[in-house]
Amino acid sequence: MRVCVVGCGAVGSLFAANLAQLEDVEVWAYDLDRAHVDAINADGLRLTGAGDVVGRVRATSEPSELPGCDFGILATKAMHTDGAVSATAHAFSDGALASVQNGVGNEEVIARHVSRVIRGTTFPAGKILSPGVVQWDVKGDTTFGPFEPSPASPNEIERLAEACTRGGMPTHAVSDARPAQWRKVVFNAATNPVGALTGLTHGRVCERPDLRALVSSLVDEGKAVAGAQGITLDADPEELIDHAARPDVAYDHKASMLQDVEAHRRTEIDYLNGGISRFGRELGVPTPLNVALTALVKALEDSWT
Amino acid sequence: MRVCVVGCGAVGSLFAANLAQLEDVEVWAYDLDRAHVDAINADGLRLTGAGDVVGRVRATSEPSELPGCDFGILATKAMHTDGAVSATAHAFSDGALASVQNGVGNEEVIARHVSRVIRGTTFPAGKILSPGVVQWDVKGDTTFGPFEPSPASPNEIERLAEACTRGGMPTHAVSDARPAQWRKVVFNAATNPVGALTGLTHGRVCERPDLRALVSSLVDEGKAVAGAQGITLDADPEELIDHAARPDVAYDHKASMLQDVEAHRRTEIDYLNGGISRFGRELGVPTPLNVALTALVKALEDSWT
Repeated sequence: MRVCVVGCGAVGSLFAANLAQLEDVEVWAYDLDRAHVDAINADGLRLTGAGDVVGRVRATSEPSELPGCDFGILATKAMHTDGAVSATAHAFSDGALASVQNGVGNEEVIARHVSRVIRGTTFPAGKILSPGVVQWDVKGDTTFGPFEPSPASPNEIERLAEACTRGGMPTHAVSDARPAQWRKVVFNAATNPVGALTGLTHGRVCERPDLRALVSSLVDEGKAVAGAQGITLDADPEELIDHAARPDVAYDHKASMLQDVEAHRRTEIDYLNGGISRFGRELGVPTPLNVALTALVKALEDSWT
Repeated sequence: MRVCVVGCGAVGSLFAANLAQLEDVEVWAYDLDRAHVDAINADGLRLTGAGDVVGRVRATSEPSELPGCDFGILATKAMHTDGAVSATAHAFSDGALASVQNGVGNEEVIARHVSRVIRGTTFPAGKILSPGVVQWDVKGDTTFGPFEPSPASPNEIERLAEACTRGGMPTHAVSDARPAQWRKVVFNAATNPVGALTGLTHGRVCERPDLRALVSSLVDEGKAVAGAQGITLDADPEELIDHAARPDVAYDHKASMLQDVEAHRRTEIDYLNGGISRFGRELGVPTPLNVALTALVKALEDSWT
């Protein structure tokens, strides 16, 4: 089996390095960071932290170097989906491409370029320490299922999930991956922009009754949009939010969107709150708070230029 | 006539220095900034800019030095109302106290300490340049009327307005000052926190369709709360907002709340969006966006500590 990770940042590297442990899987990585690509080709792709792994991965920044693959795992930031998939789609003309990205709406973009699409949600997280070296911060499960309008076959989804699990990334193949995806996006959309606009960690957001109420209002809008699609979340975001706020879990965690804001990087707001609002608009479900926070965060990004 | 300006910052200084031009008005100023007080007592209170004026004003930081006054003009930041009025109320036991502060809810606090209260709204603006010296940035009108639950007499309101007008601060005495007050608070609450959270000037806020729509939604909530009190605004906030966004008016203006945020000072959010939400709650009018922005700005303030 040949797998190409498209976007070999922190999350992509977790998949690439772990899959590369398998004798029967050949792993490629496509990434625009040439220093990272060169380091991977010279010394392998190294994970430290939650797991210590070195994987032999063939990396490139040149789409034309990619061979035909059985599978792709797309792990770019959501705003780079179209660029990354349009550049690499030829490698998946006989394969299936799975998204493990944040937010909603990525699969719709992928399906413009690739015919068999896997809807995925992943919880493992990390960060790039230096070219070729990634810290594995958090272990966690991944869920794969069909992207309904343009699905990969159940057998393909099962094969990719089985390989990931065997490589060290526990992955479930399911017939409906939307509950897991919407649970994650509702969680992220309810908490990320609140941290990003106030500068507060997850725990400090949750201990303020006024902000915690805002988080709940955002959760309610997200659940309504999920519900209008017939999706029942597979866990209560409110419980997950309170759990994460515990001092022994993620009280001091700065949401990735806050990290982006502090570094003056574009955030994924368009695919979190913006994605919920877009689905809401199409479904006739009002999402005024998600619309407001999307506008505020996008304007904040523009204030840097 | 003896008038004491309570809180002799930029706006208070405009009233104090202009009133001090009148032969028949003795002007006192109460302020906690001792350097400002000492400079006023030594050299007079000087305005430059829109008008060049030097007024002879007796300034003090010591409430017990204040004589009984016919009128007070309260010009502190809204969060200092209770402290300033409780300290100086003895000077107004036979007089009337007028608020020229931002926001709503100030008169309710004043009335806990002073029996005859004037509801006021003022548009002139400036900034302190150095102790005793204030830049007068913007001329504009002031409106005085009764605070209905605990009003000054029509005659008193007329006398104070006449003195202000004669001193160079055009002031209208009206039977209902709420339309002007709510027009200003709706304008400020719809624009100030949006600028404060995004870092954008008034013009840049208004030229983004997504933010301009948020501003309109905030205006709508404020108008609904005003309407539930039987108040018809005396001008359309939408038109004022668009007018102010013109390049020749206030395109490059940073809202005072943004200036506060950039300086890590407490803002007046509790008396703008927080005030609208408080009135809305009492009247059964939902104000979810004003509640959300109040929570975000208050949390942002807390992130500095």
